[in-house]
Order: sequence, then C-alpha cells, then structure tokens
Amino acid sequence: MSLQRLSFLKPYQTETTSCSVKMSSNENPFELSKTLKQKILNAIANVPFGRYPDPTSTKLKTLIARRFGIQPDQIVLGNGSDELIQLLTILVGDMHTCVMYPTPTFPMYQVASDVVGRKRLEIPLNEHFDLDLSMISQEELKKVGLAFFARPNNPTGNSFSIDQIKQIADSGIFTVIDEAYIDFSDREHCLSMALKSDHVVILRTLSKIGLAGIRLGILIARTDIAQKIDAARMPFNITYPSQIIAETVLTEGFQEIEEHIQIIKAERLRLFNALNEYPGIRVIPSDANFLFIKVDNGNQIHQQLIDRDILVRNMNKYASLDNYLRVSVGTPEENTLFLETIKDIYK
Amino acid sequence: MSLQRLSFLKPYQTETTSCSVKMSSNENPFELSKTLKQKILNAIANVPFGRYPDPTSTKLKTLIARRFGIQPDQIVLGNGSDELIQLLTILVGDMHTCVMYPTPTFPMYQVASDVVGRKRLEIPLNEHFDLDLSMISQEELKKVGLAFFARPNNPTGNSFSIDQIKQIADSGIFTVIDEAYIDFSDREHCLSMALKSDHVVILRTLSKIGLAGIRLGILIARTDIAQKIDAARMPFNITYPSQIIAETVLTEGFQEIEEHIQIIKAERLRLFNALNEYPGIRVIPSDANFLFIKVDNGNQIHQQLIDRDILVRNMNKYASLDNYLRVSVGTPEENTLFLETIKDIYK
Repeated sequence: MSLQRLSFLKPYQTETTSCSVKMSSNENPFELSKTLKQKILNAIANVPFGRYPDPTSTKLKTLIARRFGIQPDQIVLGNGSDELIQLLTILVGDMHTCVMYPTPTFPMYQVASDVVGRKRLEIPLNEHFDLDLSMISQEELKKVGLAFFARPNNPTGNSFSIDQIKQIADSGIFTVIDEAYIDFSDREHCLSMALKSDHVVILRTLSKIGLAGIRLGILIARTDIAQKIDAARMPFNITYPSQIIAETVLTEGFQEIEEHIQIIKAERLRLFNALNEYPGIRVIPSDANFLFIKVDNGNQIHQQLIDRDILVRNMNKYASLDNYLRVSVGTPEENTLFLETIKDIYK
Repeated sequence: MSLQRLSFLKPYQTETTSCSVKMSSNENPFELSKTLKQKILNAIANVPFGRYPDPTSTKLKTLIARRFGIQPDQIVLGNGSDELIQLLTILVGDMHTCVMYPTPTFPMYQVASDVVGRKRLEIPLNEHFDLDLSMISQEELKKVGLAFFARPNNPTGNSFSIDQIKQIADSGIFTVIDEAYIDFSDREHCLSMALKSDHVVILRTLSKIGLAGIRLGILIARTDIAQKIDAARMPFNITYPSQIIAETVLTEGFQEIEEHIQIIKAERLRLFNALNEYPGIRVIPSDANFLFIKVDNGNQIHQQLIDRDILVRNMNKYASLDNYLRVSVGTPEENTLFLETIKDIYK
C-alpha cells in the first residue's frame, strides 16, 4: 500500500489533560482586553465569510513589516510556523540531504523531516544546553541540506551561542533561526544576519505573544529568497478571520501585548528566584516565556501538580530529560498558586 | 543555492481585478444571514485567542461526521483542500512516481506536484471534457503513484464518467476524488467507494458552500487510512476561529446553506438557458456552481465585462482554453445583471 512509509508516524502529542491552570503550552496567559476584543468582533462582523481571503495578505504583511522595520516582500506568512517549517523542509536542499537540528528542541523539525521523508541529523546539546559543533564531523556536515536552530530554544529556554550558528551558516548550509521566543529575550536577534544572506531565514510568530489561536507564523528573509519561498506557499493559507484579527491587534492592541511581555518577563524572574531556593530543583536561566526545571521525581511532581489542577509539561518523552519539567509563565495569580503548590509538595 | 529548484515556480495567480460583481472564484455569493452572523460573533466572543486550538478538532469533526453519516475518525481536516492536496502529494507513493490528473482541472494538483518536486502526468480531456484513459499507455500508468480527479471538474463543470475513475482505482493507483463541487451536483458521489478501499479518498470543502474565508478542507477515507494521514498533519492546522465558525454554521446555519445551494442550482439553470440562446456562445452543462462557456473572443468579452464592473474568470492561461470563460453563479440580481450585460455586449 502506498501509505506504508507512514506506519511509523505517530500523531504529535500535546498534553491535553484539562486543568484550571494551564502552564504547559507557552501561551500568553493574559486574555486580550475587552476593548480590544470588541474591536476584533467589530472587524470580524464585516468579514464576508463566503469569500476567499486576500491570497497575498498585503495589508497584514505591511503592518508586520512596519513593526519589524523591514519590507513586506521580505515576509512569508504561514499557518503557524509549523507550516513554514514544513514548507522549508520540502523546498530547501536536495531530498537526499539531511535536516540538522539540536536536541532537545521544538519537535516540529523532527516531525516535518519524518513527514517529508528526509533523514535527520540530531546534535545533542552540551551540559549547558548549548550547541557544540565539535560533536559533528565534517563528513556529517557535508550531508546536511537544511539546519534549524530555535533561539531561544524550546524546551531549554536558553539562547545558543550565536557564533556556533554563524559557523553553520558560514559553511553554506541553509540555516533557519526560529525566533519564536525572541520577544521575551534581551539578547540580540538575527534579523540583520538573515537580511544579508541568501541562505539564512528567520521565523517569528504571534503564537507566544497572545495569538496562538489564529496561527500566524512569519518568515523573514532577503527579498529574493522570501519571494521564492512565497511562490511555493499555498495561495490562501492565512484565513480571512486570522488576517483581520492580526491586523486589528497590530494596529490597535500592540501596546497591550507589549505590556503582557513585560509582565511575563518580570514574573519569569520571580518564578526563577523562588524556584531557585529549593535544593531539590535546578532552574535553567530562561530567555523565553517558560522555565525549564529539573526536579527529583518529574513524573511524581507532574502528577501532583495535575492533582492540584495545574498543568505543566512533562519532558519525559525525551530519554535524556527524565525529571525535567517545562513551566510556562502564567498570570501573576497563576504563578503565585504554582509556587504555593510547589511549596506544599516539597513540604 | 539550495533554492535553485524553485526558480521555475510562479506564484499561483488569481484574478484580483476589483469589480462590484465577483463571479470569478466559485464562491457562494450569498452573505450569511444577520442572525447566523450574530451567532458566529457570540461564539467568537468566547474564543481565548491566546490559546492554541484543539489539535484534533474533535467537536468539529463530530459535527461533520454526523452530516455525512460517517465516523469522526474517517475524517482529516485541512487548511482548505489545498493543504490536504499538498499533504497527499508528500505522503502518497514513492517520490519518483508521477502525480496524474486530467487537464484542464483545478490548478492545485500541478502546483503541489511542482512544489514537492514530483513529476506530473497530465491527461488531456476528450472533446466532451471527459476522461479518456485509452490515451494513457500501460507503460505510463505504471509510473503513477497518485491520481487526482476533480468530480465535478473545475473549470469544465462536468462530472467525469465514474467508470473511468474506478478503472484507475482498480489498477491499484492511490486515487483522490475531489468532490469540492458535489453539493451542486445531482449525480452519485463516491463516498462509499472511498470507505471501502485502502487507496481511494474523497475531498470535500466548505469553501464552495459559504465558508471560503475560513479555509476548511475535509478528507474522507477508511478509518485506518484517515488515521495514517491524520498522523502526518500539522497539529494545529485548523485555527481556533475557523473551528468555532464552522461549528456554529454546522449546528445553527446549515439550513440556510442548503437554501443557498438550491437557489444556486436554479440560477445555474436560468443562466444556462439564457446563454444557450446566443449562437456565439457554447455553454457546457454544469454540475457545479459555475458555468464554463466558450465565446468568440474571450479576452475581449472578459475585458468588456470588467469595464462594466463584472469579473469572471478568463481561462486563457490554458493554451487549449482560449476563448473560454468560467462564470460563477451569482445572486439572482448579479445573474440578471450579467445576462443583461452579455446581451448588451452581443448587440
């Protein structure tokens, strides 16, 4: 049967246990304000649902370009970064070359490689969860056609040394720097590096800063590169409601989003300091909207949190990450509750 | 450069000339009722935009399954059928096998093949715009890994002989029957054929019956086949608003949609009869929500219609379809205006 190749594919699993406090998916925990939501509803009221959306998302791309100080034709929009990752995995490099990425990282690089049927070259991170290119041979590197680096990385929360990424890019390998979490980082981003190169592209997203529900991934590249990728995109991949909602938030609600980001960063520090006091917990410094923590018994603490109606991400699907949990920063109330619960569990 | 393979790709072009009367994209021309739109807005008001949507679209799939008399696990949802076509082109059959489809047909089969980098085998339709498999050699057929048939076909509007499609499926080729326009057809559909086979799947969509803006494609297959394809789908490919809007229309507004379909079918007949009276116009009998017509000078009439603020689709991008126009059935008022304008042009 023609689908035999697929028998090894397993559906992507997310934690679906329902808890009142959801600190498991690195979402923005704040609801949009009532005023902003009303503006969105007013805008949606005018959407002719029966009509196809703008296939070029021109208005939306113009607003995004303005925010990033770039040109609209340097942008490719995807139905979440997921779609852009899949598209790049299809488009970039010969199908017989490998897709390279560090591990642990965002699972979608692996999923996309498997779906497309490309070999993978996984580089284990070092003990500081940083890249260590000395672990890859020149022989291996020659087989790589496409490399993904999430920076800040998910689930570890740290930012890989930029020199290591540059080294890969300088070797000529097509390099994707996934900056999904960059809004929560104080480190330099790689936008200008991408705009100068014919084989470096950046991924951004609105998912982590308040709009996960509308699925909007943003690829940024030099105009000629962006245009080539855009030509391979499905024409109506951004739905009409998603375009309208993103446009409304970008024009009328971005200050709100920026305030959320500031609170999340402050709360991240509060969580870090509090968790750091427990001898049984190791907290990794984070540039993202979550904390990556090591505990004595991950499965047990994960379950105890669920029993108390708090969901965090158990990383035990990675053999090397037994006893690691990923905790998304919640609202101040949620974080306080989380800390109190941890205190209670550790008593 | 790694993207060299792409230099031949051209972005998918749709006619974007702005006219008051848009009869070019085979959309449902009727707005949803105010009552239904209000129900949609009420439902959207409760969407937490910051949260990821249900990755399994369980509620929506249950509603769709109920409508089709099938099981939810026989369904795979896509961001429009476009995504499902691309996914099948990636998944089904060895990459070195051809993708086969008739021509002219829906352009996305070609686009997906080119993006994925698979060879194409295009079968020209016969003079009745029907399939003629005698035009393909056994030698050629052996190279085919995946076949697409739009039935009713776009842009010709007719339905291919089902025996010819069965012949392909019986030869063991993985066969996709794209029933995007089946809601406007009185002929038999192929649902039960798909549910009995391990290599026949059906595509449906909400785009032609009133929800093009939310991009919802529906693949239907035997449970084991659907599950394999679903495992390769990106996890959050159906946005939160799209799930909510589709759920609302399926539960509270489907009678309205069905009334639209009846009016469109009646209007199609009215348009057919009226156009059929012109000696200079050949109208092809249609099972879809559009008419495929041949005129003496396609470019000229297309432009004359634009000058009078009516947009239809000029098919002149196909070498064999010079002087063919595709006219989507509009509202009764739009159709009357179209007929009056044609009368005026032909005077």
